[in-house]
Amino acid sequence: MSPSADHEGYRIGSVDASTTMVVVGAGPSGLMLACNLVRFGIAVVILDDRPDKTSTGKADGMQPKTIETFKQLRLAEPLLRTAARVHDIAFWQSTADHPLRRTGRQTHYPEHLVGASDPYILLAHQGMVEEFLIDDMESRGVFITRNSRFTSCLRLSGTNNLEIVYENISTGTSHKIQADYLVGCDGARSKVRGFIPDADLEGELTNAAWGVLDGVIDTDFPDLWSKVALRSASAGSILWIPRERGMTRLYVELSSTDGERVDKAKATTEYVMQRARDAMQPFQLEWKSVEWFGTYVVGQRVARHFMDPQAQIFIAGDAGHCHSALAAQGANTSMHDSFNLAWKINFLSRGLARPSILHTYEEERQKIAYDLIKFDVEHCKAFAEGEAALSENFDNNIRFISGVGAEYGPGMLTSASANDSRLKPGMLQLPAKVTRYLDANPVDIQLDVPLLGQFKIYTFVPEVSQSLGFLQDVTQALKKTFVKITSQAEQSYRKQPRGYAPSDEFVQSHRYTAVSEAFTLAMVTRSPQSQFEIANLPDLFQKSRWTLYLDNAEKASCTQKWFGDLRSDKAGIAVVRPDGYIGAIDSWGTSEGERAVQWMKHYFSFML
Amino acid sequence: MSPSADHEGYRIGSVDASTTMVVVGAGPSGLMLACNLVRFGIAVVILDDRPDKTSTGKADGMQPKTIETFKQLRLAEPLLRTAARVHDIAFWQSTADHPLRRTGRQTHYPEHLVGASDPYILLAHQGMVEEFLIDDMESRGVFITRNSRFTSCLRLSGTNNLEIVYENISTGTSHKIQADYLVGCDGARSKVRGFIPDADLEGELTNAAWGVLDGVIDTDFPDLWSKVALRSASAGSILWIPRERGMTRLYVELSSTDGERVDKAKATTEYVMQRARDAMQPFQLEWKSVEWFGTYVVGQRVARHFMDPQAQIFIAGDAGHCHSALAAQGANTSMHDSFNLAWKINFLSRGLARPSILHTYEEERQKIAYDLIKFDVEHCKAFAEGEAALSENFDNNIRFISGVGAEYGPGMLTSASANDSRLKPGMLQLPAKVTRYLDANPVDIQLDVPLLGQFKIYTFVPEVSQSLGFLQDVTQALKKTFVKITSQAEQSYRKQPRGYAPSDEFVQSHRYTAVSEAFTLAMVTRSPQSQFEIANLPDLFQKSRWTLYLDNAEKASCTQKWFGDLRSDKAGIAVVRPDGYIGAIDSWGTSEGERAVQWMKHYFSFML
Repeated sequence: MSPSADHEGYRIGSVDASTTMVVVGAGPSGLMLACNLVRFGIAVVILDDRPDKTSTGKADGMQPKTIETFKQLRLAEPLLRTAARVHDIAFWQSTADHPLRRTGRQTHYPEHLVGASDPYILLAHQGMVEEFLIDDMESRGVFITRNSRFTSCLRLSGTNNLEIVYENISTGTSHKIQADYLVGCDGARSKVRGFIPDADLEGELTNAAWGVLDGVIDTDFPDLWSKVALRSASAGSILWIPRERGMTRLYVELSSTDGERVDKAKATTEYVMQRARDAMQPFQLEWKSVEWFGTYVVGQRVARHFMDPQAQIFIAGDAGHCHSALAAQGANTSMHDSFNLAWKINFLSRGLARPSILHTYEEERQKIAYDLIKFDVEHCKAFAEGEAALSENFDNNIRFISGVGAEYGPGMLTSASANDSRLKPGMLQLPAKVTRYLDANPVDIQLDVPLLGQFKIYTFVPEVSQSLGFLQDVTQALKKTFVKITSQAEQSYRKQPRGYAPSDEFVQSHRYTAVSEAFTLAMVTRSPQSQFEIANLPDLFQKSRWTLYLDNAEKASCTQKWFGDLRSDKAGIAVVRPDGYIGAIDSWGTSEGERAVQWMKHYFSFML
Repeated sequence: MSPSADHEGYRIGSVDASTTMVVVGAGPSGLMLACNLVRFGIAVVILDDRPDKTSTGKADGMQPKTIETFKQLRLAEPLLRTAARVHDIAFWQSTADHPLRRTGRQTHYPEHLVGASDPYILLAHQGMVEEFLIDDMESRGVFITRNSRFTSCLRLSGTNNLEIVYENISTGTSHKIQADYLVGCDGARSKVRGFIPDADLEGELTNAAWGVLDGVIDTDFPDLWSKVALRSASAGSILWIPRERGMTRLYVELSSTDGERVDKAKATTEYVMQRARDAMQPFQLEWKSVEWFGTYVVGQRVARHFMDPQAQIFIAGDAGHCHSALAAQGANTSMHDSFNLAWKINFLSRGLARPSILHTYEEERQKIAYDLIKFDVEHCKAFAEGEAALSENFDNNIRFISGVGAEYGPGMLTSASANDSRLKPGMLQLPAKVTRYLDANPVDIQLDVPLLGQFKIYTFVPEVSQSLGFLQDVTQALKKTFVKITSQAEQSYRKQPRGYAPSDEFVQSHRYTAVSEAFTLAMVTRSPQSQFEIANLPDLFQKSRWTLYLDNAEKASCTQKWFGDLRSDKAGIAVVRPDGYIGAIDSWGTSEGERAVQWMKHYFSFML
């Protein structure tokens, strides 16, 4: 996996002849996938046909859920320090009768509709996001194979292996890699997609064409530093997005959705600037500098398949879905495609789950892609209709836009069992503050346990003293039922450890795998710290001392947020998947430990 | 200022023959000084006799105020990500009659007593703190002159220049630097101190001797991850401090304060471990690894002077004061010595203030040193007396320990004027959340404006519409009164700009110096955003658009926290010094703009 040559600042050359996974494309989706696999300890080769990471332009908005994901990866800090933040949206409109004026202003992600812990869009250009993922991989000794264009893929006869061919663009030479999996994160024109049967994009190109300009703006328009949706009487719509380093991104509508597409040759920087100036009258609009310019025609399409029937070739990101850029969904959805796939590949590669687990990738992510297109169609329509329609569209879809509302249907990994908890299987865990028992540190429950590819089993016991029997039952069951999986996981990680970086020393990940490499056991209680000692808990909970939480950090308790009312004689369990989605959640009387155990067995049957 | 040679990984060699300031010692105090000066654009040479930064041990606790300072410097993130956090303190005791038991546990920095925005101690070894300061300087092109031992200093006859001699330890050669200022950040045995007349340390060495051990501990003691103050019946006291990377620091008392000092030769690692084991009975105590070991005898001493009468030679940090390590004050106080000095040197070097400004350094920081020793004597005594005394000592001193209670008396830079505001001159600004008008971002008022060496003038107007006349008066006065200082500052920073790093692009510092390089103008109002447009404010406030704040982000408003009740027909002004201390604060009727103007003129007379 080590680089073979260092040529003019980037890595080129032939790579291992054999690996577990080949990722094609080192954009946000491909890097999110590779970075996670490297951390899990899975061998990966990343091919990219560019000589370096994105330097300007392209995707630039990270939604609240994506910020959470980067926090979970412990990669968010440099982005939070450098990126711009959008907290509000202003609506402006001019009509034949009224000059341009502000018609409204509202909070972008209202607490009561979204409830995200970071309720804003983080604006930084795609290259910065790529950089932090790349840095993390490189700190673990894995480098991107640059200037390398994917050519073809075939299944070696008589084996389950794929043979992947790529061309080194610098040298013109051709190279082969054997791998178990191939994932195309190679954009809307994905070449990998062609190797998945019946995976064409379905849907239409629209007539909507937009110019995109990143630059430093000089204007007397007062809302330069808010997100602004502006609809002019005669010169189309504009979307303003504040950016890092004093820049602003302008999306400028080049033709109405009803009319003809604008001639591509006509859509120059100067043309787009003039159209923006026309729409912004009577405000002045000039550019001190322009960093990037692009145009695109809106297509709203989803690939018919995200994977081949053998579950060896996959696509993720733009390769699987494309849509308008207005709601800043692209990179966010793309990275979460990969985030969904990575841990499943890890489980399967280590023999810890049945192969059918991979089919949940398509089920889950294609559902999100369809949700996205459905929203995007309505959103573009509302954008064209003006504030009232757009504001309503926002309210109806704001959870989805933020990413925290991207939800999966029932399936192998998302239990269909009915229960009256507030969190349901297929939803993301809700952010909540709790206090770590051991060191009295207030922590965010959704961020505290590091992402090690493991499940998390949160046991909620309102009162510890009443629930010792229940905790004991759970402990016994975990010991008995999971003995095989735990020992298999331990062997696997010993033989093939997680990707190590010096920064891991500060994470102390062994604190979270004391019980098993396959899951972290946790407890959340409303009992005060003074009422119990760790030494009096069943042994697995003693071992899990870093994940014992006191539910006293916020007025709205974590128990309340996740379960609603949970009486003192009840106990709840929430199984959280490695990607933060709720797999299963239910509650029982504290004497019904055996039922809870059966329920866990049932959920985990895909790995038992 | 650029390095002359790169030798085995660190910078060595002769430096410029002439500079503004020579800093001796690249520990926390010297680095904080140098880093600030480099940012302000002041030429500095940093001499250090060590070949590299601290690798293990030494100071390890950052108090709440120090965390705030690092946040203001935008250097806190990597520390917050990696360091351990102490939120609580547990008290344990054994007596002749009772075996060892927990006698109490409490929050370390209770909100109602301290009110810090980061109410915890951040534990990371000194080298990490040094590293981030060094990295910041290096990103601005300034490197430490390593392996270089300060030898002597003399005033060149007929000039105001100092000639500073140092020895390159590697080559044995001697070098000279001419400089305007010399600062000794060279520790308790400071050599620079000898060049300040009548600057001996005053005070006593005590008989208290302590061993300090950093390592990974294996124990069944349940409170390993809290700060623990433990007093044993027969084997002295122990202080437990959790550390980064799974380590724990133990301070082990080697002799009681009443008895004899322990023989230094006897105080080996093994001796200290055994003494700790004895004190911890019946708990087991073993070390998996030991990273650092040291012993010290507690001295409680303050230098009689912190500077020479000509205000050219200074000492900061341990060179000026030493005391016990138990309350983790050393590095914190030392860095704030430098933090106090740096901006004053900048103002004077640029001809923006009268020379007498430098005398406030000694007035202010020696006062803090005496406060510290007074506290330390009581703290050590309470530590020896056990929980009740220690708990009371904590309650009485916890604001001071946290750093947010380190307060200056009235002086040239801290107005003595009486007023009924809650904040007083000489206090640190109180943390408060406000909303930036321009982009609706919630921000911490004490962190939002970058540290550019400038004063901040916060105008509090509960209702904008009622206060436009007042704002106009302030604007006129700032234009007229500050015209000379503003033009002088502008020329100075044009000629000699602030030290630039690529990361500054994300700070956009010009947003905060639009009115003047010498101060940032800001406004805090309870008026809702919908009730006024920036375009309707007086022009200097329009220019200050990035520092217009809506006081709507918290239930306890910023206005309330800083001023108490401020009626709608009143306006307040808080002048915040470059180091975050309140210089002056008062309020007037909204028609009394002229009185406010006279008041500002009076405060700023040291620079007018």
